[in-house]
Amino acid sequence: MSNLDANTWFTEISDRDGSAFSLRINKKLESKQSPFQLVEMYETTDFGNLMIIDGCTMVSTRENFFYHEMMSHPALFSHPAPKNVVIIGGGDCGTLREVLKHPDIKTVHQIDIDEVVTEMSLKYFPELCESNDDPRASVMFDDGIKFMAEAAPESIDVIIVDGTDPVGPGEGLFNHAFYTSCLKALRTGGILIQQSESPLMHQQLLRETRAAMLDVGFADLQTLPFPQPIYPSGLWSATMARKGENFTAFRAQDVESATFNTEYYNVGIHQGALATPNFLKRALAK
Amino acid sequence: MSNLDANTWFTEISDRDGSAFSLRINKKLESKQSPFQLVEMYETTDFGNLMIIDGCTMVSTRENFFYHEMMSHPALFSHPAPKNVVIIGGGDCGTLREVLKHPDIKTVHQIDIDEVVTEMSLKYFPELCESNDDPRASVMFDDGIKFMAEAAPESIDVIIVDGTDPVGPGEGLFNHAFYTSCLKALRTGGILIQQSESPLMHQQLLRETRAAMLDVGFADLQTLPFPQPIYPSGLWSATMARKGENFTAFRAQDVESATFNTEYYNVGIHQGALATPNFLKRALAK
Repeated sequence: MSNLDANTWFTEISDRDGSAFSLRINKKLESKQSPFQLVEMYETTDFGNLMIIDGCTMVSTRENFFYHEMMSHPALFSHPAPKNVVIIGGGDCGTLREVLKHPDIKTVHQIDIDEVVTEMSLKYFPELCESNDDPRASVMFDDGIKFMAEAAPESIDVIIVDGTDPVGPGEGLFNHAFYTSCLKALRTGGILIQQSESPLMHQQLLRETRAAMLDVGFADLQTLPFPQPIYPSGLWSATMARKGENFTAFRAQDVESATFNTEYYNVGIHQGALATPNFLKRALAK
Repeated sequence: MSNLDANTWFTEISDRDGSAFSLRINKKLESKQSPFQLVEMYETTDFGNLMIIDGCTMVSTRENFFYHEMMSHPALFSHPAPKNVVIIGGGDCGTLREVLKHPDIKTVHQIDIDEVVTEMSLKYFPELCESNDDPRASVMFDDGIKFMAEAAPESIDVIIVDGTDPVGPGEGLFNHAFYTSCLKALRTGGILIQQSESPLMHQQLLRETRAAMLDVGFADLQTLPFPQPIYPSGLWSATMARKGENFTAFRAQDVESATFNTEYYNVGIHQGALATPNFLKRALAK
């Protein structure tokens, strides 16, 4: 039984999972209580910089690419020709950077409720913010739920819900009212994608999320598992919901010919993420 | 910063990775120092029973299926008609169980150096040991390196190296001498598969393992990433090496028509595991 010295380790206990994950730290960089949450930054020994929100690991330099790439490229390459994208949450700006790698995207509106997250990311994850000044991007700090409720109908191709767990500020992003707003704002064929927690540990939430998306009228769903080293179980998921049409084959040819760099995502990874493990098939059928 | 009470949490610190993983425990079940290593058993709150060897998490009830299925089915379905299998290590017997699900397998010799591991597994993971009495299985406790050095040439179709990390008893399983023995003992077209650590955290070891396999004369390699919730980074890998022939398409039709149950593995999962993430392609090309 090893002991973790609280001066040299950051530990997140996931009470609901009976597990905990720790990273060794060189030092605490900064801590700021926003009107919404406590945002803390650490320098780790092996994972680069680390952002903690209300005690939960959010982003590290070393492995954030899994999450940001899987929250953006599968949805964008599943849509035949996305032009207008909205990101709800996403304050670290890593998803925004990935979306803006697609040259045919015309506008990206990002709405995160907490400016402190972006302020910290600009300082400690400058590489994630390198596209914030792209003329196609609008980085706003406001209530994403309200933004979606007021969005013009049939005005958006892809909505990316890059929020925290369904507690605190992220709670309202996992319910019928929010999904109804998203459905209305999407054009036909448009895609909503949301982080949907661990397919191993949080199956009840995943089932409820998927059921709510279908309840409000989305036509088809895909849940994609992917590695997430600093989140509970190391395995996470994103769920995509399509308006008015079933999912068809993604634009594999366009992935192959894309000129931008990714660390995780490629054609085979996208295809692989569409393969549902047997345990998850059974869990989703319950 | 959360504190983990050492009475209610088991923590493994991975010093080389700057990370730690903890599971909440109800109680310690048993602890036994074998001639080779310290084997400890815990009952956890959320992961079932947990086996610890020399302080490292090895097996839990809840998630061992990822590892055991990926150490067996991809190799067996990549071989056109495997009959004779050897497992080096594998004392918890979970891999043995998976191999014996294949009805055309004629013999499986399992050689683990430490009988205490199997003794503990029989007691605390009886489901993993349910096929130990299969007449096709020989469960032996001996030196696997010696066993392979003395194996009859051209007598084995698939060798599964289900050992610990390359320190302690597992060290001799990651070198040229051992791979040379394996190559000699395999029939042409035969496959060696070995757990090859985290593709995110242990790239140097993975490169060395692959280089050594090619050095001794294996013809072709495949490295398959898969989730491993209780090991560092949550992402692990198995590397397959083929004697005398390149890998061709695996027997997907036979996977589809297989009548046995798996929790993770299926055709899509196997295909997905063959997709190498971009970061790993670059790391392996170094």
